[in-house]
Amino acid sequence: MRRHPLQNITASEIRRAADIVRRSIKSRGNLTSIRFKYIMFHEPPKALLMPYLDAESDGIPVESRPFVPRLVAVLYADESGREGFESIVSLDTDTEVDVIKLLAGQQVPNDGGQPQQFIQTILNDSSVLAAISKLNLPTSATVYCDPWSYGADKFSHADTPAQIQAYLYVCTSPHPESNQYAFPLPLSPVLDIAKNKVIRIDTLDTGGVEDGMKHNTGYETPPANFQPKEYHRDLLEVPVRADLKPLHVVQPEGPSFAVSNGNLVQWQKWRFRVGFHYRDGLAIHDIRYDGRKVFYRLSLSEITVPYGDPRAPYHRKQAFDIGEAGAGACSNVLGLGCDCLGLIQYFDGWLADENGEAREARNVICMHEQDSGIGWKHTSRQTGVASITRGRTLVLQSILTLMNYDYIFAWIFHQDGTVQFEIRATGIISTAPIEKGKHSPWGSIIAPGVLAQNHQHFFCLRIDPMIDGTRNTLVQEESVALPETEENPFGNAWTVQTSVFEKSTFADAAPEKNRVFKIINESHRNRISGNPVGYKLVPVVSQMLLAGKSSVTRQRARFAEHHIWVTRYRDGELWAGGRWTEQSVKETNGVFDHAARNEDVKDEDIVVWHTIGLTHTPTPEQFPVMGVEILSVSLKPAHFFEFNPALDVPQSTQAINKSVQVERTSTSSC
Amino acid sequence: MRRHPLQNITASEIRRAADIVRRSIKSRGNLTSIRFKYIMFHEPPKALLMPYLDAESDGIPVESRPFVPRLVAVLYADESGREGFESIVSLDTDTEVDVIKLLAGQQVPNDGGQPQQFIQTILNDSSVLAAISKLNLPTSATVYCDPWSYGADKFSHADTPAQIQAYLYVCTSPHPESNQYAFPLPLSPVLDIAKNKVIRIDTLDTGGVEDGMKHNTGYETPPANFQPKEYHRDLLEVPVRADLKPLHVVQPEGPSFAVSNGNLVQWQKWRFRVGFHYRDGLAIHDIRYDGRKVFYRLSLSEITVPYGDPRAPYHRKQAFDIGEAGAGACSNVLGLGCDCLGLIQYFDGWLADENGEAREARNVICMHEQDSGIGWKHTSRQTGVASITRGRTLVLQSILTLMNYDYIFAWIFHQDGTVQFEIRATGIISTAPIEKGKHSPWGSIIAPGVLAQNHQHFFCLRIDPMIDGTRNTLVQEESVALPETEENPFGNAWTVQTSVFEKSTFADAAPEKNRVFKIINESHRNRISGNPVGYKLVPVVSQMLLAGKSSVTRQRARFAEHHIWVTRYRDGELWAGGRWTEQSVKETNGVFDHAARNEDVKDEDIVVWHTIGLTHTPTPEQFPVMGVEILSVSLKPAHFFEFNPALDVPQSTQAINKSVQVERTSTSSC
Repeated sequence: MRRHPLQNITASEIRRAADIVRRSIKSRGNLTSIRFKYIMFHEPPKALLMPYLDAESDGIPVESRPFVPRLVAVLYADESGREGFESIVSLDTDTEVDVIKLLAGQQVPNDGGQPQQFIQTILNDSSVLAAISKLNLPTSATVYCDPWSYGADKFSHADTPAQIQAYLYVCTSPHPESNQYAFPLPLSPVLDIAKNKVIRIDTLDTGGVEDGMKHNTGYETPPANFQPKEYHRDLLEVPVRADLKPLHVVQPEGPSFAVSNGNLVQWQKWRFRVGFHYRDGLAIHDIRYDGRKVFYRLSLSEITVPYGDPRAPYHRKQAFDIGEAGAGACSNVLGLGCDCLGLIQYFDGWLADENGEAREARNVICMHEQDSGIGWKHTSRQTGVASITRGRTLVLQSILTLMNYDYIFAWIFHQDGTVQFEIRATGIISTAPIEKGKHSPWGSIIAPGVLAQNHQHFFCLRIDPMIDGTRNTLVQEESVALPETEENPFGNAWTVQTSVFEKSTFADAAPEKNRVFKIINESHRNRISGNPVGYKLVPVVSQMLLAGKSSVTRQRARFAEHHIWVTRYRDGELWAGGRWTEQSVKETNGVFDHAARNEDVKDEDIVVWHTIGLTHTPTPEQFPVMGVEILSVSLKPAHFFEFNPALDVPQSTQAINKSVQVERTSTSSC
Repeated sequence: MRRHPLQNITASEIRRAADIVRRSIKSRGNLTSIRFKYIMFHEPPKALLMPYLDAESDGIPVESRPFVPRLVAVLYADESGREGFESIVSLDTDTEVDVIKLLAGQQVPNDGGQPQQFIQTILNDSSVLAAISKLNLPTSATVYCDPWSYGADKFSHADTPAQIQAYLYVCTSPHPESNQYAFPLPLSPVLDIAKNKVIRIDTLDTGGVEDGMKHNTGYETPPANFQPKEYHRDLLEVPVRADLKPLHVVQPEGPSFAVSNGNLVQWQKWRFRVGFHYRDGLAIHDIRYDGRKVFYRLSLSEITVPYGDPRAPYHRKQAFDIGEAGAGACSNVLGLGCDCLGLIQYFDGWLADENGEAREARNVICMHEQDSGIGWKHTSRQTGVASITRGRTLVLQSILTLMNYDYIFAWIFHQDGTVQFEIRATGIISTAPIEKGKHSPWGSIIAPGVLAQNHQHFFCLRIDPMIDGTRNTLVQEESVALPETEENPFGNAWTVQTSVFEKSTFADAAPEKNRVFKIINESHRNRISGNPVGYKLVPVVSQMLLAGKSSVTRQRARFAEHHIWVTRYRDGELWAGGRWTEQSVKETNGVFDHAARNEDVKDEDIVVWHTIGLTHTPTPEQFPVMGVEILSVSLKPAHFFEFNPALDVPQSTQAINKSVQVERTSTSSC
């Protein structure tokens, strides 16, 4: 029996795809031994998938729906990583249907097996060992190594071989959960990936403003009695709070959602498919509300995290967490009772290892309902009667760990047709060495001798809409004051100005103008208001990329220059920061290039991208582990419905909610 | 025994204050009969209260703490409302200690008994009845009347007598919960309050762009079979959702908070007093974390809601919900299981009626704990072990109904020292008549023949800080890119620029610069970072007041011109929009005037004000009742703590949280 075209890749599909590629390589004879970088679901062309989804929505039985090819993308390279290829293979015909060779300057991301190999090589390298031994670390010390993608350097270095810039930390505690990042060392080995060899050790500056930012005037290695700032429960210096009583979420009649067919979710008029992919991790497909088309695909397209410390090699600290690491590959195994409360549904996925073997990614997505407080309320002035509903949301959550940092991402569906995306940034701030008692313009001191550098995060959301159909238009609305005229004699008037995006381009948030972006369908008008049906996006108004115009930092992350992009849909254009971000010096075939095609986007199949920034100047409160920094953006129906679509949510009553009143205390004196 | 100086006013105190005023009036002999507008707690001077609070915090027994006077503010007027007075009375000496007479142009707000009286007068007025009868309403019709404060007109009209501008609606359903606002009538009677007489009936324009906004070309009254758009459970046209399963919050070991002494709350290192006052409703006093001073007082100071429709009399539609209506006086009686889930603690308050009698305001504040999702998480790359805590918050909630609109306000305390203020705007959008099939530049059609006018909401938060003491400073930080230089050879560098507010003034949000406001204490430095201890305010970046520079709409709400204000503390300066807002034509003694004093605010006792705007262009989705529109702002510790203050929150484990896993569904085909 045929699988649904949006079902996630399976273990056997991964193995079949690897076999197809191996056969194809053998027949081509150009590579002897390969490492697989990823094997992931390759989305069928929208022109083929959309008719299938429409047929499905129309209740047409599986056997009568149109054919949709089942494709898999396989990225692989020779052992050295110098020659990279991506094959698209068909599972319908068991053949390779396309293959591209990566060009000079395009590098494959590292596979899951490589980081441990890099660490081994670096920590066993004789020059690294010699440099470490000069630091006279206490005998109890363990050195940890974080292999960072080499990041940007200069444009002229586009042909730099694939490298790793490693940062080292020392741990003086024998406990395996001791904070790895509590004592950074002033050494940064550079590894040539192809040669699997340390080619250089960069020295990290440790001076401060007190000595005119001199490189290194008196760096002290940790003493034997050094106490790292710990976060693990077994190692805390402070007693755990004893006065927090348990709070349970109990759903005696079960969940309000239903999952069928592996990844088809139905909940409160919503219906969508949960995707789990190597590169963008959690993605939501074919999202409909009450049978109406809303979004074809929602996903987080790219993340970049550039650091603002100009001292080499820190200018290379710029992670691309989707393009380099793969959100799917970095997903946490979620734990019952740890990451959520209540009734939890888990979704699993499949990834490939470097040998083309399938590896189960268990519990990588969790789904649960949450109470979201009052949904709407009105108390009648006439009668004093309150009408009130509580809001309920459906949360799909995925958590990524990227060495020191952790991100919690959630797609949140509301009963009223709103879709929200929430980002929680947490984990451990990246630390750098600084001499004790010194301060830096490039960050904050968060523990004695530990600098947390200023940095920015940019998250680019990819919104592929189908508001009552695939032909949509992006418009911008602003609320504009009117001059005092005969029509406006008291000066209180203002109006809404709408402008249409005719060509693919970018745009910026302008909260001072109440600028709102709307994705509308010009062919469908709301019968009540007469306006085109639409969804509005109130953008997160953040500072954008601070790196200079001509910096590589900026050139490789053009998507972080503007809040909003609108592009014409093309199959495969899923990556805001470009297809190949590993050691890139320029964003290539990213959203900047898509937009630059200057294509018609009025009443066309469009994609809207929203880049959300977080400029982070750390504080001591964010060490040794950082409380969640929350960012959130909503896509809300605007003239999509003829009345409040959550009008039919049941009233909030004590009979259903069973709250408990705490006894009033006496109001005794003093 | 003496009461704590921050305990809320009691019934007996209200009665005593009324008696003192009555005696005083009698002795002065200037008024024969009065109506009380409010009788409310009058805060003692900070110079007297602060030493008491310090003594309390130091554990000094009640009897040894310094004396703090117990004062009550009483506003009253003669029966006509023309002569208004505010007396401050001392309950220690049973005497009036101060009295001011309201000046020309200053009007008392209406008391709780007046609206019903206005409605009676208007709906029984013969000219109103005649005008209504001309509309040929169906016999089933009930006419409703909403008395609005007369609002702004022209500067030259500062001496306009106190008036009411009423809006009328017709209801064709006999059900008492039928939507009052579903069919607005094109008449607006104006009442002279002192004369208790309708002096004029304004006609409302009902034309649209289709007829060049002509005044009235074909207004149709509702037919006998008119179906109002209903929101009450008994009247819905749509079936209630049957697939929403119950969700309970269960706290088997009780709450983590403790309430003592009537209004003293202790929870997770926090300690504060819950105030309930006639004018600003819920206010939080003497807020300390782990024994350290954080805020002296937090409150919502004013709300204004100007409408953007220039057609008279709509230019007068500008509510001041705190100054005119009194947040305390408009507070909902909260219901168990309706407004919150879990273990709920209620607080009651006392208000005065027009006769000086005490009226209990029952359940006007509720307090409960909420799970707020993951607080912090890190998964070790070395071991795969996840360290994770869930965040718990303490929510103090109060809900206001102001005729058609409802606001839900919550002060939310976090375990990490963050204080959040959340606004949820809900209720019924104010409606106006428009001829069927026509459209307006001044709003959206939300039901046939019903216009919802564009408007703005401005909420001004008053933040009276005491960050490790009362001498504080407001600073502004921006993240600034640096030019490419020898020091910044790769162009990635940026730094943080800080500027100090030396004099009282205003400031605006600038998210494109990552502008952050910090309230710091220059005398206390963080031992780790070396920075002054502080709390940061990331302002809500909203559009500000759109009304023209010279409009009365703007002149009476200068607080809505800028996001941030910093002023030097003075006793009694609690009201951003001015002391007397009823029918004001100018903001007088509001935050604009406080700031204009150009006083030193560096290392002084300061107050920071944050005005949050919401520009609202309604949509059909917001009728017949509007889903909550949420705004939120946080005050977060920044260099206040030496490490993450929520490090000691217990780990999130299944043993405590008792979540339930939903069975995986089969991944069968199609």
